[in-house]
Amino acid sequence: MVGAVITEGGVIVAEGFHAAAGQPHAEVMAMRALGRAPRADAILHVTLEPCCTHGRTPPCVDAILQAGFRTVVVGATDPNPAHAGKGIGRLREAGVAVVEGVLRDECTDLNFLFNHWITAARPLLALKVAATLDGKLVSAAGEPRAITGPAAQADVHRWRRLFPAIAVTADTLLADNPRLTARDADGEHAPVRFVLDRQFRSAGRAGLNLFTDAFRGRTIVVGLASAVRAADQAWFEAEGIQVWSLPGDGADFLDAWAERGAAEGITGVLIEAGPRFASVLLREGVADYLFAYIAPRLGGNPESPAWFEGGAFPLVAETTSLFGQDALFRGYLG
Amino acid sequence: MVGAVITEGGVIVAEGFHAAAGQPHAEVMAMRALGRAPRADAILHVTLEPCCTHGRTPPCVDAILQAGFRTVVVGATDPNPAHAGKGIGRLREAGVAVVEGVLRDECTDLNFLFNHWITAARPLLALKVAATLDGKLVSAAGEPRAITGPAAQADVHRWRRLFPAIAVTADTLLADNPRLTARDADGEHAPVRFVLDRQFRSAGRAGLNLFTDAFRGRTIVVGLASAVRAADQAWFEAEGIQVWSLPGDGADFLDAWAERGAAEGITGVLIEAGPRFASVLLREGVADYLFAYIAPRLGGNPESPAWFEGGAFPLVAETTSLFGQDALFRGYLG
Repeated sequence: MVGAVITEGGVIVAEGFHAAAGQPHAEVMAMRALGRAPRADAILHVTLEPCCTHGRTPPCVDAILQAGFRTVVVGATDPNPAHAGKGIGRLREAGVAVVEGVLRDECTDLNFLFNHWITAARPLLALKVAATLDGKLVSAAGEPRAITGPAAQADVHRWRRLFPAIAVTADTLLADNPRLTARDADGEHAPVRFVLDRQFRSAGRAGLNLFTDAFRGRTIVVGLASAVRAADQAWFEAEGIQVWSLPGDGADFLDAWAERGAAEGITGVLIEAGPRFASVLLREGVADYLFAYIAPRLGGNPESPAWFEGGAFPLVAETTSLFGQDALFRGYLG
Repeated sequence: MVGAVITEGGVIVAEGFHAAAGQPHAEVMAMRALGRAPRADAILHVTLEPCCTHGRTPPCVDAILQAGFRTVVVGATDPNPAHAGKGIGRLREAGVAVVEGVLRDECTDLNFLFNHWITAARPLLALKVAATLDGKLVSAAGEPRAITGPAAQADVHRWRRLFPAIAVTADTLLADNPRLTARDADGEHAPVRFVLDRQFRSAGRAGLNLFTDAFRGRTIVVGLASAVRAADQAWFEAEGIQVWSLPGDGADFLDAWAERGAAEGITGVLIEAGPRFASVLLREGVADYLFAYIAPRLGGNPESPAWFEGGAFPLVAETTSLFGQDALFRGYLG
């Protein structure tokens, strides 16, 4: 997510944003929106350092210089270590005044998925939990099911729309029959929906939302090649559901899944885990990032384990936000 | 805490607040600040329903009517069930337009200590913890000691200044040697400081802040009458420290302490507990209220128990606030 704003005399005269890979970058969109040459006092503000190399689009630095901007304000630098600072350097060499690092943390956070992708070349695996203060993901028996309130739930839907993929275990699929779509004022959208199902236990379960709804072509069941049966494979194919059969004995199942995701260009996966799987992801260091929605409630189901059993796993980057009376703690896991 | 504001034509022309028991109420202070009769279009806004009975001060309803206000806006109603609504009723009978319930929850929250006192006739026992996301009150060995950041710590000092009393166990006193003062831009202030010390183990411990600082006259060591020795009693007296020797065998020690506090007019105690005592307070239903500061960190000391071990204790009223990247969850325990 990159945005650009052009101001003249302190007044915003044009805006642009980068809509999708291969589309023009935010700076170019803002210049197009302006539709004329910028005034001499115009300032271009952009959340991410302008690119200076030919990717899928021509370098933005050239467009900025051709347009004649004398001042550029930059939020975050290029996350690619090979490019970081080069776009700013090219602008300065050409005599443009560049102000760096304005709202740097916020601008960097806008691209946390892409930044991880560029530096790690793997999907960002983000664990999402919604918990009571005492670490339970489920209420006591007889209590209403949802831990968090409507504002936090709406925020989850925003993240589901941002992430290219979402994942649940087969246990969650079979117990809860989730939809895993992003539902907002624009309607319903589906990221890629992974079902982590080593033994393909979900094969033949025809009644499930993920296997029947309008987005079932974006459901991918991930299991072990050693466990897949021809009949199951045929059933999934007939239902229009993709299957990833991963090699290996299962010891590195999650790693093999992430590698395959990387090969398919999936930059991030939001993992909606139950308490045991959440603890595994933390303990084994599989999760890169955490979204913890905490509700102002004690007294989760005492039969259920906490989501953080069995290890010390510091958070590094930190952003805390309020949604109604729930707090979201998110950041990189150390 | 009660505040009043007088507006004329939508502009604030006077303000007042209730400074201390026996002092004039907020409405009267605002009228005094105005220093003249209110205009015909004047509106009196007050966070708490005006009183209609003679307490330590004359009834505010009479003063409002004498001043000639035609419109009064009220936040919370009187917490005393015997008086609730009567002040508003008297105003309406006299032809004053009363708008009720404006920011009712916020105005009620302003007086949460007093409201509990009026209805329960006992101190509000409020448990305060500052914890990691995984429920630990202490960091892993080698980590910096403080769980929460400076903004949350400053907020604790504000609550210490609001509460008439604070409490720690003898274990905490002897291990941490706390000061338990409220430190802010105005300087250092001390609430009554309780040491919960059944066996008077702290007797003779001359080096402790609570026994030596300028506020040591506000330190009260609470133990069992059956455990106090004459020499210990004499030592505390010589140091200028109060002793409460409670009757009974200790089974209802905390209850006896609260009863004595009620008899002494102490409306609330902020209990700064370690994890085991916090869990006892929750499990046994002793704590009325919770302040839980949660830091965006996992990985508290795995040797230490969580602060919520062993029970289900729902929160009822709920207020969540951000202090830096820490969240404060507070409310009544069900």
